[in-house]
Amino acid sequence: MKNFVFQNPTKLIMGKGMISRLATEIPADKKVMITFGGGSVKKNGIYDQVKAALSGHKTVEFWGIEPNPAVETLRKAVALGKEEKVDFLLAVGGGSVIDGTKLISAALLTDQDAWELVVAGKPVTKTVPLAAVLTLPATGSEMNSGAVISRYETKEKYAFYSNYPVFSILDPEATFSLPAKQVACGISDTFVHVLEQYLTKTGVSRVMDRWAEGILQTLVEIAPKIRENQHDYDLMADFMMSATMGLNGFIAMGVDQDWCTHMIGHELTALCGLTHGHTLAIVMPGTMTVLRETKGDKIIQMGERVFGVTEGSRDERIDETIRRVEAFFRSLGLTTRLSEEGVGEDVIAEIERRFTERGVHFGEDGLVDGPTARKILECVK
Amino acid sequence: MKNFVFQNPTKLIMGKGMISRLATEIPADKKVMITFGGGSVKKNGIYDQVKAALSGHKTVEFWGIEPNPAVETLRKAVALGKEEKVDFLLAVGGGSVIDGTKLISAALLTDQDAWELVVAGKPVTKTVPLAAVLTLPATGSEMNSGAVISRYETKEKYAFYSNYPVFSILDPEATFSLPAKQVACGISDTFVHVLEQYLTKTGVSRVMDRWAEGILQTLVEIAPKIRENQHDYDLMADFMMSATMGLNGFIAMGVDQDWCTHMIGHELTALCGLTHGHTLAIVMPGTMTVLRETKGDKIIQMGERVFGVTEGSRDERIDETIRRVEAFFRSLGLTTRLSEEGVGEDVIAEIERRFTERGVHFGEDGLVDGPTARKILECVK
Repeated sequence: MKNFVFQNPTKLIMGKGMISRLATEIPADKKVMITFGGGSVKKNGIYDQVKAALSGHKTVEFWGIEPNPAVETLRKAVALGKEEKVDFLLAVGGGSVIDGTKLISAALLTDQDAWELVVAGKPVTKTVPLAAVLTLPATGSEMNSGAVISRYETKEKYAFYSNYPVFSILDPEATFSLPAKQVACGISDTFVHVLEQYLTKTGVSRVMDRWAEGILQTLVEIAPKIRENQHDYDLMADFMMSATMGLNGFIAMGVDQDWCTHMIGHELTALCGLTHGHTLAIVMPGTMTVLRETKGDKIIQMGERVFGVTEGSRDERIDETIRRVEAFFRSLGLTTRLSEEGVGEDVIAEIERRFTERGVHFGEDGLVDGPTARKILECVK
Repeated sequence: MKNFVFQNPTKLIMGKGMISRLATEIPADKKVMITFGGGSVKKNGIYDQVKAALSGHKTVEFWGIEPNPAVETLRKAVALGKEEKVDFLLAVGGGSVIDGTKLISAALLTDQDAWELVVAGKPVTKTVPLAAVLTLPATGSEMNSGAVISRYETKEKYAFYSNYPVFSILDPEATFSLPAKQVACGISDTFVHVLEQYLTKTGVSRVMDRWAEGILQTLVEIAPKIRENQHDYDLMADFMMSATMGLNGFIAMGVDQDWCTHMIGHELTALCGLTHGHTLAIVMPGTMTVLRETKGDKIIQMGERVFGVTEGSRDERIDETIRRVEAFFRSLGLTTRLSEEGVGEDVIAEIERRFTERGVHFGEDGLVDGPTARKILECVK
């Protein structure tokens, strides 16, 4: 085990009917800016529940935080929040709304432009307090300090770190009406979050390995059942738990982390507009294939414990496990090849160029630079 | 899944050499009372590390918090702390030292007698801030808000709840020199903590089930290796992680809990002086046997996933799993029968009398009253 420091202060409030707790969880004297995405919350009743709970509070609404939240949009929210002198933020939506609101919470307390805060690359801890009502399980943003922010005019997408949400409310019923594609991408995103923290070295932490595998086993078990019945409360609760526990630090204590698949995936989203969870389903089998030597022992452990792959030579077991991972993504209804999404050589070349220009070395061993990213993408053409 | 609220603010600082962080984790202007047990920390170097780290702080020492911390002892610490006007507490030891210090942290800010705080049965949240350096993995007290306090003059032992430690430092090297019996009891304690939160109902939360099983699988794997080599850093780190993660709320989200084995075990300690972890090893097979109908599905799931028991009828699988659990405790070097410890009918009768007098109904279904506690104990005579 590696030395580590862990702390996660977010209060997790989970279950049916829990949105009503907003009334007491947010101090009565706060002026709250509620941030939303595109409007699905008006159809599924979440908006009405939130407004009813906050009927005793002063509120301002900001609508229109898009998937892959754009700094261009968030600047408008910052301006509104400053004008209205809000001192509490409530994000109602999925990871994009929460991520975007994290940047708003930091930008409200400074005169710096929001994009400067992102590219500075330093965590911002002076923020307006923020809470969330989650509607789409996927990113884990409801219980971590991270965000990913895009700048549309330059097709860039970077991570940004600020404070943890004070609390997050998760009602599995909020997920019943999600489009199937969003559920698929949420499961894919969760699965790959776990792999980024797991598919590295063996023998570092038995407990963390088991916990990561526990989430993977759960996802493999529930994914086909969810495709049959997205209104099963316990199934959707398991999905929500998996997504939140998959990226709140609980499975990352004292272990190596990778994240190269995310870094490549972010470029695919920035350049081609592919949904984040979908990009991961495409890239991950390529990552496993190209890094099969350094990740081999862990791939074999995963194959055995998650997919029951126990037969064959070392190489055969690695091959079979990579096949199972790709088959899992396809079983979600997602494509797993660049050609299926019309992504060609020009995009691969641009990603290689960007990585080389930035001088990055991603992954637990620092092996993923521009040329290696090209190899990974060529595996999944 | 049941509705739940989860929050655990403790900062966990884990690894070799981390005790030196005390210097910066405790604000420089604090006057710190450091609390200790019997003195083993002077032999294994922990005392020297703590004192070196706190050389810039004003400190007062309180020695002699015993296993199953006694209110009679803790009152002396409260008097010293008030006299010295300390405003920070650092517990250096195992669960007993940390538990006792939790009561001190509450009693320092009131004129009430410490035992009154315990028997009032209400969480005390107005406390002096408390942190811990853990030397014996077992109780999880380093990352939860609970404590168990004894009153020797009346042979009583009750749970008490206050605030979470601000931070806890866990260095696996601190465990290298522990007596083998303490390690065995620490493993047993951890194993049963997990069972209290797991061995109830099936189908409530897949993630929580997998995480609980992950700790059980880890303990079953590492226990024999630890008996061979207690100086293996990664093994002892896995043990420490198991103990802390076993009772910090991380495996309890939205699931049923039992705790009847602990309630009976506490009486055995209060009446006969048996070590806490040892009492659990004796009682748990009895609990499983008497409650085999209501717990049967979960016992079978545990047998399959933790011990690989997959053959036979329902009854045979339950029997075999109970046998495996008892064998696990015996493999630690612990006895598992009351007669082996000279505990007889008089103690069983007194526990039945106390439970009946108090009108308790412990367990996830409220089935464990005085007569059921008698049945459980008669199973393990």
